[in-house]
Amino acid sequence: MAVTIDAHSDTFTVIVTFTPDPSRREELVEAIRAFVVTVVRHQPGFLSSTVHVSADGTRVINYAQWADREAYEAFGANGAVMDQRGAITNFPHEGQPYEIAFQVTATA
Amino acid sequence: MAVTIDAHSDTFTVIVTFTPDPSRREELVEAIRAFVVTVVRHQPGFLSSTVHVSADGTRVINYAQWADREAYEAFGANGAVMDQRGAITNFPHEGQPYEIAFQVTATA
Repeated sequence: MAVTIDAHSDTFTVIVTFTPDPSRREELVEAIRAFVVTVVRHQPGFLSSTVHVSADGTRVINYAQWADREAYEAFGANGAVMDQRGAITNFPHEGQPYEIAFQVTATA
Repeated sequence: MAVTIDAHSDTFTVIVTFTPDPSRREELVEAIRAFVVTVVRHQPGFLSSTVHVSADGTRVINYAQWADREAYEAFGANGAVMDQRGAITNFPHEGQPYEIAFQVTATA
């Protein structure tokens, strides 16, 4: 099922940008994949996670969606869950919630 | 019409992260909006642009989709179009094409 970015929905968006050494990019992607598939997707209110890799290999961006802020904050505050992030925490990253300011499509 | 992130499509994704001074964030968003609405959306192969603002106001992310690499490169190489970016160029930013490594949803 594809993910929808709907500027008019109440979906809670979190974007995390990782800046790995390009030689360790694949290791990072696999660490995120393992955490999302085995842990995050089972958390209440999780909607989706789409992980993007930049053409030059220096950036990995996780575009994540949650049902609402409360669900995301409960996830972040769950120590037993956070402890399972594994190698992800070794990679420099910064992320936070985002709101959609506007959206323009070719057809509307 | 909402935007779709489909890991299995050929859509060409470009993500640009701006790091404005938070006091000038709204000015930046409006500059991007003007350029996208009046110029970018009319370029061949443009599909969508969704502009996100971080909760702390220090990041503005443009998640853009193009039909294919050729369309995006023609856009970037069009001097008459680039000249219309206006104030956008005054804001620090970095962006490049991205590929989707994987996508996980709550239901699939």
